[in-house]
Amino acid sequence: MKVAIQGERGAFSHQAALHLVRGAEVLACATSIQVFDALESRRAAAAVIPVENTLAGPVGEHLDLLLERDVFIHAEMRLRIAHNLIVAPGTKLKEVRQVLSHPVALDQCRNFFRRHRGISAVPFYDTAGSVKHILSQGLRDTAAIASSQAAKEYGGKVLMSGLEDDKRNFTRFFLIDKKKGISSKADKTSVVFSLKNVSGALFKALSVFALRDLDLSKIESRPVRGKPWEYCFYVDVLRGDDPAMRLALKHLEEIAGFVKVLGVYPRAKVSK
Amino acid sequence: MKVAIQGERGAFSHQAALHLVRGAEVLACATSIQVFDALESRRAAAAVIPVENTLAGPVGEHLDLLLERDVFIHAEMRLRIAHNLIVAPGTKLKEVRQVLSHPVALDQCRNFFRRHRGISAVPFYDTAGSVKHILSQGLRDTAAIASSQAAKEYGGKVLMSGLEDDKRNFTRFFLIDKKKGISSKADKTSVVFSLKNVSGALFKALSVFALRDLDLSKIESRPVRGKPWEYCFYVDVLRGDDPAMRLALKHLEEIAGFVKVLGVYPRAKVSK
Repeated sequence: MKVAIQGERGAFSHQAALHLVRGAEVLACATSIQVFDALESRRAAAAVIPVENTLAGPVGEHLDLLLERDVFIHAEMRLRIAHNLIVAPGTKLKEVRQVLSHPVALDQCRNFFRRHRGISAVPFYDTAGSVKHILSQGLRDTAAIASSQAAKEYGGKVLMSGLEDDKRNFTRFFLIDKKKGISSKADKTSVVFSLKNVSGALFKALSVFALRDLDLSKIESRPVRGKPWEYCFYVDVLRGDDPAMRLALKHLEEIAGFVKVLGVYPRAKVSK
Repeated sequence: MKVAIQGERGAFSHQAALHLVRGAEVLACATSIQVFDALESRRAAAAVIPVENTLAGPVGEHLDLLLERDVFIHAEMRLRIAHNLIVAPGTKLKEVRQVLSHPVALDQCRNFFRRHRGISAVPFYDTAGSVKHILSQGLRDTAAIASSQAAKEYGGKVLMSGLEDDKRNFTRFFLIDKKKGISSKADKTSVVFSLKNVSGALFKALSVFALRDLDLSKIESRPVRGKPWEYCFYVDVLRGDDPAMRLALKHLEEIAGFVKVLGVYPRAKVSK
C-alpha cells in the first residue's frame, strides 16, 4: 500500500508509516500540500502526518489541512523521537562547525547547542533530507540531526545519540485517507468547530461534552484564515460513534458556526 | 529606553518596538532566550515579543518563556504584516532562483511560490537577516522576504510588495519587563494555568470566568515539558484587576495545578 509522507525517506513520518501500515511503500513528498494532493489524485492510498509533539506543540499546517481537505482519520500513533548527530563516515566531532536539521528538531536539542557554543544550528527543510545533503555533497564540517533510520538510508554515521533535551519526546501521527470508514474498535473522535465569539461560546461548546460525561483528551485552537482574532477549536473526545456522542455533536451544531468530524478511530496506547 | 527584540534590526519586532515605546533603542538578539536573558541581566529595560499571528498561529517558544521566566506584560499591539520581495539593487525577478526568509514568513507567502515554480523557498534564521545576508554577500540569484524597513536598513530594493497570501495578516506583540506594575487603564488580563486532566477540568476552569460574566478573547494550549500529553492553558480575559477578576483567579486556583498571572494591561484597539 502506497503511503504519502512529508519529508524524505528516513523521516520520522517514514518510521510512523511502517508502524501504522504493515509493508507500507512510502511516497516521499516535499510539502504537506503535496501529501494531501497525492491522496486527492489517488497516487497514494493513505498518508501519515504528524499532528503534535510533546515538546514543540501542534503542527499547525496539518491541522489547517485536515480542516480544508476531504480526508478522514483512521488511526493514531505515538512515536518516541530520538535525535542523533549524523555525519559523513570519518568526520570527527571537533571538525563540525554547523548542524543542519528541521527547525523543530533543532529547537528540541537546545541543550546540545548550549554545550557546543562553536557549533551553529542551521535550519534545513527536513531532518532526513539534511543527512542526504551532507552525504551527497561530501561535507566534512557539517553534521545533521535526524533519526537513526536516516543514517541507514543514506550511509551516514551516528556520532552521538539521544541529542533531544527531553527523553519524553513523542510525536503523535494520524493515518488518513479519503474513505469515511469507522473501525469497530473506534473509541476516540476528533472534531473541529468554529466559534464567532470565544468568550461564553467556548464554555457552552465544551458543555455539550461535559453534560454527557464525554471526556476530552485534548483541545487546540487555530486562527481562522481571513478572519483575524477568530478561532476554530480542535477537540479529541474519548468516545467512538455512539448515541451520546451523536447527541453531543447535534448539540454542538446549535452553538458552533460549523462542525466537522475529522475521524473516529481507536485510541493509541498511552506511551511513557 | 533599551528594548530587546529577537531578530536583526529591521525585523517586524523592531517596527512593533517603535510603536510601543517612543524613541526605543533596539537591542537585537539572535535568539528568544537571549531576549529574556537581556531582561534578567538588566541589559535591556524592556522587550517586545510576537505571541501570535492571525495566519500562522501562536509563537510557542514565547508562550513557554512567559511561563518560565519572571516577567510581566505591560502592553499589547497588533501589527499588520506586509511582506516584500527584496533584492540587491539591479537584480531582476527572472534572475531569482531562491528566496530566503524565516520559515513563518515563507509559509505566509505560499501562493507566491505556487505561482513561481522555478523559485525555491529556503528557510533562513530571520526575515530582516535574510536581507542583510543578500546585500552583504552581493547575491544576484537570491531574494529575501521581509519588511520594507529591512530594505531601508540594509540598502535593498523592494521588487514586489504585498506577497502575503492574506492581507488580513496581523501579529500580536507584547511589551514585557521585570516590573509588576499595572496601569490604571488596564482592562485585560493574561493568565496561564495547568490541568492534570483535560476532560472535565477544562470545563470547570472556564466556568470560573463564565459564572462571573468575564469574557475570554483567547485560549491557547501548550504541552507541558517533561509530562507528555499534559497541557497548560493560556487565556486572555477582557477584564483588569477588579474584585470579580480576583475572585475568579482564587476560584481557578482550586481547580488548576498552578495559576500564573502573566500581565494586566490595556487592550489593543481592534484592527481590521
